[in-house]
Amino acid sequence: MVSLAQSSATTTTTTVASIPRLQTLILTVEDTRRIVEHVGLDRLMDEMINRLTQAFEQFDPVKTVVPVRTGFSYEQPHVGLVEWMPLYEKHRQIMVKAVGYHPQNPGLYNLPTVLSTVSAYDPVSGHLSAVIDGTFLTALRTGAASAISTKLLASPNSQVLGLIGAGAQAVTQLHGLSRCFDLKQVLIFDSDPTVSQSFAKRVACLGLGHLKIRQAEINDIVAAADILCTATSVDVNDGPVFHDQDLKPWLHVNAVGADFPGKFEVPLSLLERSFVCPDFRDQAIREGECQQFKDLTQIGADLSSVVKHPEQYHHYQQTFTVFDSTGFALEDQVAMNMLLDYATELQLGTLVELESATAEVKNPYSFVL
Amino acid sequence: MVSLAQSSATTTTTTVASIPRLQTLILTVEDTRRIVEHVGLDRLMDEMINRLTQAFEQFDPVKTVVPVRTGFSYEQPHVGLVEWMPLYEKHRQIMVKAVGYHPQNPGLYNLPTVLSTVSAYDPVSGHLSAVIDGTFLTALRTGAASAISTKLLASPNSQVLGLIGAGAQAVTQLHGLSRCFDLKQVLIFDSDPTVSQSFAKRVACLGLGHLKIRQAEINDIVAAADILCTATSVDVNDGPVFHDQDLKPWLHVNAVGADFPGKFEVPLSLLERSFVCPDFRDQAIREGECQQFKDLTQIGADLSSVVKHPEQYHHYQQTFTVFDSTGFALEDQVAMNMLLDYATELQLGTLVELESATAEVKNPYSFVL
Repeated sequence: MVSLAQSSATTTTTTVASIPRLQTLILTVEDTRRIVEHVGLDRLMDEMINRLTQAFEQFDPVKTVVPVRTGFSYEQPHVGLVEWMPLYEKHRQIMVKAVGYHPQNPGLYNLPTVLSTVSAYDPVSGHLSAVIDGTFLTALRTGAASAISTKLLASPNSQVLGLIGAGAQAVTQLHGLSRCFDLKQVLIFDSDPTVSQSFAKRVACLGLGHLKIRQAEINDIVAAADILCTATSVDVNDGPVFHDQDLKPWLHVNAVGADFPGKFEVPLSLLERSFVCPDFRDQAIREGECQQFKDLTQIGADLSSVVKHPEQYHHYQQTFTVFDSTGFALEDQVAMNMLLDYATELQLGTLVELESATAEVKNPYSFVL
Repeated sequence: MVSLAQSSATTTTTTVASIPRLQTLILTVEDTRRIVEHVGLDRLMDEMINRLTQAFEQFDPVKTVVPVRTGFSYEQPHVGLVEWMPLYEKHRQIMVKAVGYHPQNPGLYNLPTVLSTVSAYDPVSGHLSAVIDGTFLTALRTGAASAISTKLLASPNSQVLGLIGAGAQAVTQLHGLSRCFDLKQVLIFDSDPTVSQSFAKRVACLGLGHLKIRQAEINDIVAAADILCTATSVDVNDGPVFHDQDLKPWLHVNAVGADFPGKFEVPLSLLERSFVCPDFRDQAIREGECQQFKDLTQIGADLSSVVKHPEQYHHYQQTFTVFDSTGFALEDQVAMNMLLDYATELQLGTLVELESATAEVKNPYSFVL
């Protein structure tokens, strides 16, 4: 293994001109930590929001193919799933995010609910060019996507943010929204009181000291909120996570928890009188809030369309709006490439030879000789 | 990054008890090389054949779920595809092989046609436990699968092996078969004469000095062969790669090149009077020789069934038989676990932290603090 910082010294002793070196960049947690340290969380979130806005503006499903994710889900030994979210940007990049969702991880193993890695492939040769952490990246891009939808669809004067589910994703929801709105108050609820209690401490790093963060009952939260984020691990068929009563008529909801057939967070009655904007329509119909619609014509334009033509959707800012965020591989690609750009700039990461390719390409054994 | 050989010395300085360390084992080409050096190619192939036979015997599609592979295929900038072959062994392991097939790699980039990596996930937490080379492993397991099918379905006195397509896969076809049959002669053809010419040199490492290896025309090869392996990069709709004439009535064919809708190697007329044994029926119907059948009842039992009840298929040894080898994720899992077992035994591989998990599992930013 060759650390990039030392590569010139080390490779000269091992490189043989006739042997093609297929190197894969491994970006570890420590590398990501250094990137964040260098750039700063706020600048990274701002850049993520800007890059993602641009990616949605330019998104062309003919040039960038995004199949609905597939994977394995199970009930034993614990409820969980491992999925693959692939993306093919023609002539340029193939990206696959592998993502595990295991809601019992925090309680049983002191591990995050979401564990993930992202791989990039070169569509010219099939070479695996990079493997990087997807856990931090997933949280970051989910916050950025909600920020974009909220900027376009919520009332611009929104000041009160409600968070139902105060776990890992809630941190980046608040972060993303705090970069776009002049929030005054955050009301939080989590089914686990220790999670509610630790929230203020967990977001202390965001420098939002002026914000009033307090725990509240769900009914009080939804009555006060201008913007509501649901980021729960509600069980299949146990949704919705709040009642459709006493809502501000301009309420914008970011429903980010849905990621599983049967799992939903928002009352159908609210969806039915809202402009519902999915991140990825086909997936939202299968796994998101849009599952609840019998009549699929009730689904609104997707986020990419809203970003492309914001003026057409401006009037929804004073009505009920719901962003149905199931997780879109385009968001992961943007986050991955941002981190890889910084890795290049800061010379971070480690190059490894993972694929056996040797001078004799027609001999699978020649690398041993 | 912590090399396993040094792990005890290095981790003591960095481990903090309260922070769960999610380590992923990276097995590089160099690690695989050391395993092969330690075990020896013949013993490795023998063990692969034995382990794979056992895996086919025990294969239960309820306990081990193997979806048909999916991926991206394209014509530009060159013909190619990148696919994912997933497998879920319940309660035990999730494996995904990422495999690229780019037939212009050798000519244009001096790279193998097949480039691949294999990832293992823990279905308890979703953790990525290992990433290893899949290129060598693909060649090895493809040779082993053909050896198993041939042992069960070919005439036990087979002495003449024909190889149409003398590239990388042909090397392991010969290797696997040479471990199970007392071969006397190998007749080879490749559309690229330089590939035919280099074959004897490429298999010199197998210590088969007693074997007569010579180039021949396709018609002469198929007339003389007891066993025929087709391992070509024939273009879509350009098959078959040989004519159905002058064949020995006990000919067994291992058709290993098919991996793409429209790509096939064996004449339909031969398939129609052969016992056709697919490695993975659903995939063979889509991408293998079985694509050619209009009547799917013409497809025989799959390899797992033949391995489980060899006595039921014994009589086919004196008839035409075809192993339709499209590549089965079970084979990859067996090969991966064999290499990982040796990595443990020899303390090879490097542990990296790829997934950001920290003491505060509900804070995606805590790893930066």
